[in-house]
Amino acid sequence: MGNCCDRAASFFGPQKNTNVRVGLPAVCFVWQIAMVVLFGVFIRYDEESDTHWVEFRRENNITSDIENDFYFRYPSFQDVHVMIFVGFGFLMTFLKRYSYGGVGFNFLIAAFGLQWALLMQGWFHSLNPETGKITIGVESLINADFCCAGSLIAFGALLGKVSPVQTLVVALFGVTLFAVEEYIILDLLHCRDAGGSMVIHCFGGYYGLAISWVLYRPNLHLSKRFHGAVYHSDLFAMIGTLYLWMYWPSFNSAITDHGDGQHRTAINTYLALASSVLTTVAISSMSKKGGKLDMVHIQNATLAGGVAMGTAAEFMIQPYGALIVGFCVGIISTFGYLFVTPFLEKYLKLQDTCGVHNLHAVPGMLGGFIGAITAAAATEAVYGAEGLRNTFDFEGEFENRTPGTQGGFQAAGTCVNIWFILRFPIWADPGDDNCFDDEVYWELPEDEEIVPPVLEYNNHMIHKHQEM
Amino acid sequence: MGNCCDRAASFFGPQKNTNVRVGLPAVCFVWQIAMVVLFGVFIRYDEESDTHWVEFRRENNITSDIENDFYFRYPSFQDVHVMIFVGFGFLMTFLKRYSYGGVGFNFLIAAFGLQWALLMQGWFHSLNPETGKITIGVESLINADFCCAGSLIAFGALLGKVSPVQTLVVALFGVTLFAVEEYIILDLLHCRDAGGSMVIHCFGGYYGLAISWVLYRPNLHLSKRFHGAVYHSDLFAMIGTLYLWMYWPSFNSAITDHGDGQHRTAINTYLALASSVLTTVAISSMSKKGGKLDMVHIQNATLAGGVAMGTAAEFMIQPYGALIVGFCVGIISTFGYLFVTPFLEKYLKLQDTCGVHNLHAVPGMLGGFIGAITAAAATEAVYGAEGLRNTFDFEGEFENRTPGTQGGFQAAGTCVNIWFILRFPIWADPGDDNCFDDEVYWELPEDEEIVPPVLEYNNHMIHKHQEM
Amino acid sequence: MGNCCDRAASFFGPQKNTNVRVGLPAVCFVWQIAMVVLFGVFIRYDEESDTHWVEFRRENNITSDIENDFYFRYPSFQDVHVMIFVGFGFLMTFLKRYSYGGVGFNFLIAAFGLQWALLMQGWFHSLNPETGKITIGVESLINADFCCAGSLIAFGALLGKVSPVQTLVVALFGVTLFAVEEYIILDLLHCRDAGGSMVIHCFGGYYGLAISWVLYRPNLHLSKRFHGAVYHSDLFAMIGTLYLWMYWPSFNSAITDHGDGQHRTAINTYLALASSVLTTVAISSMSKKGGKLDMVHIQNATLAGGVAMGTAAEFMIQPYGALIVGFCVGIISTFGYLFVTPFLEKYLKLQDTCGVHNLHAVPGMLGGFIGAITAAAATEAVYGAEGLRNTFDFEGEFENRTPGTQGGFQAAGTCVNIWFILRFPIWADPGDDNCFDDEVYWELPEDEEIVPPVLEYNNHMIHKHQEM
Repeated sequence: MGNCCDRAASFFGPQKNTNVRVGLPAVCFVWQIAMVVLFGVFIRYDEESDTHWVEFRRENNITSDIENDFYFRYPSFQDVHVMIFVGFGFLMTFLKRYSYGGVGFNFLIAAFGLQWALLMQGWFHSLNPETGKITIGVESLINADFCCAGSLIAFGALLGKVSPVQTLVVALFGVTLFAVEEYIILDLLHCRDAGGSMVIHCFGGYYGLAISWVLYRPNLHLSKRFHGAVYHSDLFAMIGTLYLWMYWPSFNSAITDHGDGQHRTAINTYLALASSVLTTVAISSMSKKGGKLDMVHIQNATLAGGVAMGTAAEFMIQPYGALIVGFCVGIISTFGYLFVTPFLEKYLKLQDTCGVHNLHAVPGMLGGFIGAITAAAATEAVYGAEGLRNTFDFEGEFENRTPGTQGGFQAAGTCVNIWFILRFPIWADPGDDNCFDDEVYWELPEDEEIVPPVLEYNNHMIHKHQEM
Repeated sequence: MGNCCDRAASFFGPQKNTNVRVGLPAVCFVWQIAMVVLFGVFIRYDEESDTHWVEFRRENNITSDIENDFYFRYPSFQDVHVMIFVGFGFLMTFLKRYSYGGVGFNFLIAAFGLQWALLMQGWFHSLNPETGKITIGVESLINADFCCAGSLIAFGALLGKVSPVQTLVVALFGVTLFAVEEYIILDLLHCRDAGGSMVIHCFGGYYGLAISWVLYRPNLHLSKRFHGAVYHSDLFAMIGTLYLWMYWPSFNSAITDHGDGQHRTAINTYLALASSVLTTVAISSMSKKGGKLDMVHIQNATLAGGVAMGTAAEFMIQPYGALIVGFCVGIISTFGYLFVTPFLEKYLKLQDTCGVHNLHAVPGMLGGFIGAITAAAATEAVYGAEGLRNTFDFEGEFENRTPGTQGGFQAAGTCVNIWFILRFPIWADPGDDNCFDDEVYWELPEDEEIVPPVLEYNNHMIHKHQEM
Repeated sequence: MGNCCDRAASFFGPQKNTNVRVGLPAVCFVWQIAMVVLFGVFIRYDEESDTHWVEFRRENNITSDIENDFYFRYPSFQDVHVMIFVGFGFLMTFLKRYSYGGVGFNFLIAAFGLQWALLMQGWFHSLNPETGKITIGVESLINADFCCAGSLIAFGALLGKVSPVQTLVVALFGVTLFAVEEYIILDLLHCRDAGGSMVIHCFGGYYGLAISWVLYRPNLHLSKRFHGAVYHSDLFAMIGTLYLWMYWPSFNSAITDHGDGQHRTAINTYLALASSVLTTVAISSMSKKGGKLDMVHIQNATLAGGVAMGTAAEFMIQPYGALIVGFCVGIISTFGYLFVTPFLEKYLKLQDTCGVHNLHAVPGMLGGFIGAITAAAATEAVYGAEGLRNTFDFEGEFENRTPGTQGGFQAAGTCVNIWFILRFPIWADPGDDNCFDDEVYWELPEDEEIVPPVLEYNNHMIHKHQEM
């Protein structure tokens, strides 16, 4: 059987070496040691997490410990944390034989990514020029988790087709690019993007698609027997979906302004998500014989409302505005799964395992433009003079911006994301005939057979090929 | 085989049309558009989620953003949100072949229900007569989730026997009735019912049973091969159970008074739940050969303590009082699963898939009476003068109510729930022979066979019938 | 087959009686009634959860309800609660046929343990000598959950080998010993141990190992067919792992000082955990052919960073210090799974199902010493005069302690834990040939066969034995 397997593999291309016994430990050790050194040089506690807080409090007339930023943001931070590790992780367990890889590599990417993100974002946003230090607090942790999200979205497009070493490289470059792009959009263009429609979702989606395009596998059909779900793997994926769905209001509101800012953002996101569930169900049911629902749609497109509200959720888009956004992107995202993903694969050589194009790239881009429109439409009558200033941060050098100009910059920011298409080196990715298979990188328990044996399948493929 | 299947079906009754390809999308679209329009007309942000909060703060001498209601309630809101979607959703995955339906239709009902609830509850409780608007904040979101809970409980009784269109109808009527009943009990009778023993659980349970009675299926035994669990489906259900169990203190305390109110409610609920675990285990073990435990009991009756504390948790019932409540309802609920559910099915034609009668209806009703007794027993010595006033809201027109009178009204409120028995139109529900089967409404992956093939089973049934 | 089974069993030793139909209900009822009585005598609400809070607030010039301890600690409490029930519970579902037992008995132990913990910890730490009452609030609930954690860790070592009655006994003694040990370490020696490296993990680990040693089963290989995972049981276990991992920052910071204390603890724990993921992956990959990862390592050793930061997380260990701690214990813990567990089983007769020695006992002990070193190295220059006093609680009779002395006491405290080795009575544990099998204590659904039938296996064992 091994023989036959080999024959099949060599028939379609050179057999890939999937041994990562040297590469993976080396990368983990070296990079983690680098983190220790860089953290030693650069990273310290900020004034709210340092023991000097008691003096800081007195000096700034802060009446109570409860006004420490920790109490404003920690519950949201934990919700975001769950989204990153359980949400994204379990959403990627839907494949029948790549569930370990989905949740396990997600874990690995995020655990490395958040450390690197603290450094990269620190260098760009909060390096103190006097001390040469970056100080971190709970908001930094949230931002680091956000930054990982970009790479995890990209991983979604590559799921099952890359080696663990490659996933770490994806995270390294992803976090780096993220920090640059975020600096351009949020600092230079002074856009508002609390939930990261542009900065996180649009970026992550296109980053993943770009890599997927570079790594195009013409013979991926050789792994077709692994490329699907079984009954219980789809249920595991629903755990991921629901945690993403439920905690998305925390995701979008985690770093918005204290008070009404966080409050309003949570409400808008909650409503947009509810609305996209109904339109997703509607389109999914229309698309199948007998009106049956497709788990892929329910697992993914229901979340599009959260993605698309990432920019505008902080603004006074009004509850019905949020419902409209959810309504539209639910439809668009489901159509994406029905028509765009097959089209991309067939004509543009884009193999997008999780369909991040439909869930992140497109809704994220739309979210950017929705934010631009909402910003441009802002008036003092609706926001109040102070409210307008607070919401759009018209302070310092941006004091004299008008909502109209802000809208223009928001739109410009959205466009920046479409730049990021790139190539980079790759190692030890699996052959086309054992993609989507945990067997390659994980010790598996002996188990009931879930997939048809490789022998028969490959024989079958060979015969089919010979007939052609 | 299809032929044989048809024969079996036509033998026992006219074959049901389970095609929802027109009905489901139509309902989703039309209702969601209605939501958009109604939200546009009625719903706005309240003063704590509006950009004018900064002015409101100044005018009301609120010293810090942390006093925005968001920070009092948002962590509890998220816990409640998890209970609604993961708690109820996964609790209903226990059936071997209806797990998609359990978690998926739960998702659909709740996503629609919460929008409709914001409107219904708004019209009844917070419509501003001057502006004609309903203003919403985080407390409204919690109440909307609560309101959905009533319909989800009802869905538990119907699990596997209704079509997705019917579930949406159940939610539409359920939310409407809920809002009316809540208005009567909380506003007119001025009852206290923070965790909703009466308003949510008792109502939801009897509402579900009423529908189940209307929809009685004499030949449900034809779906018997699907009516049970497999090893891993029971584990998925335990996810639901544990999230409900852990977050129930947040459920009961989510909308109680700031400060000691939320604090005390959480403690009481925590204790009642712990206590009901032990008595559930005791009864479950006594009831089986060899003292084996039954997953159905562990998944459900352990939660009865939370249901039964819904009304009284806010009162000074004392920690030992909470333990006693949990002790008793754990026993009662487990006995319900052992004896009452089979009795109801056999003699009253009530088919209650999840046993909501034992987990919600009865413990909820008991919770109402426990609340009445605790209220009637309240004294100024225990509560303090101010504490008594705060806890029972003896203000405005209710200033002169005594605890005794309050107890009477609480008891009256509990009785109100027993009214709600009703009929309503139904479409596209599955035939008796394919209940509890995801095949009907979901695209299923090809998979290892979990259930005996329908062919053999139906053949067997036909022969059995012919022999009779 | 039953006959053959019996023969095999009697061949290797007297057949155990696994009937718990009398013992389990009796213990549950009697102990729960005892709880009710003892709570009635001793436990009341504290001033922050009592209706007199409104008066207390006024007397103590507390400006807002938000300063009620509930709002400082409740979100962390809920995270800890999830760790106890879902984290520990699902981590123990990895066995192919003992998942009900893992999550179910964990539920039972914790539900009883937390009640008993409120009493035991109350008697030792907060009994009011005047009133003879223990008053409880949200911090008591967290401490009760912590106290349960000790017994749940011990249960990890015993998983699959004890009866439910025994698990309750383990909890009864575990909680009692925990409270004594905690009193010695935290009160008498005045150690700081917020996240319980010493008090919880080191104690729990050695407590479990001690019991496992007492209960040594020479013929445990008879249950070998159940002693392993299947594909989906490992995924269920990953749910447990991720919840423990994500919420560990809340675990360690749940009862640290308001303000910077909670903030800093969360940051340090977050970083240590991230770091131990990478080194765990590195060692796991190095240890296997082809660099494949082992789920056992990923499920467990990634958590070692949280355990080892339990004591020092509150101190100014600095972000890079946290990374170093995680780096080292990730390696140590994974090596433990590779080499120490097999060694302990072979030479010391210690059967440690979940490997708590590697995840809790050793990292906990290391955490104690890391705390001692960090404390000894504390200076006023780094902490500030006030900060030093607050962090180490140098108040009252301990006013004149220096960091050096404190370090010595911390080290002494760690050593205290190594004392606890003990014996106690046991009932109704399963025979050696049906360990790790839910069949013994749970009603199981009819299901696809996951394990080879006992008949063949035992036949095979008998033949093998006879040949010897």
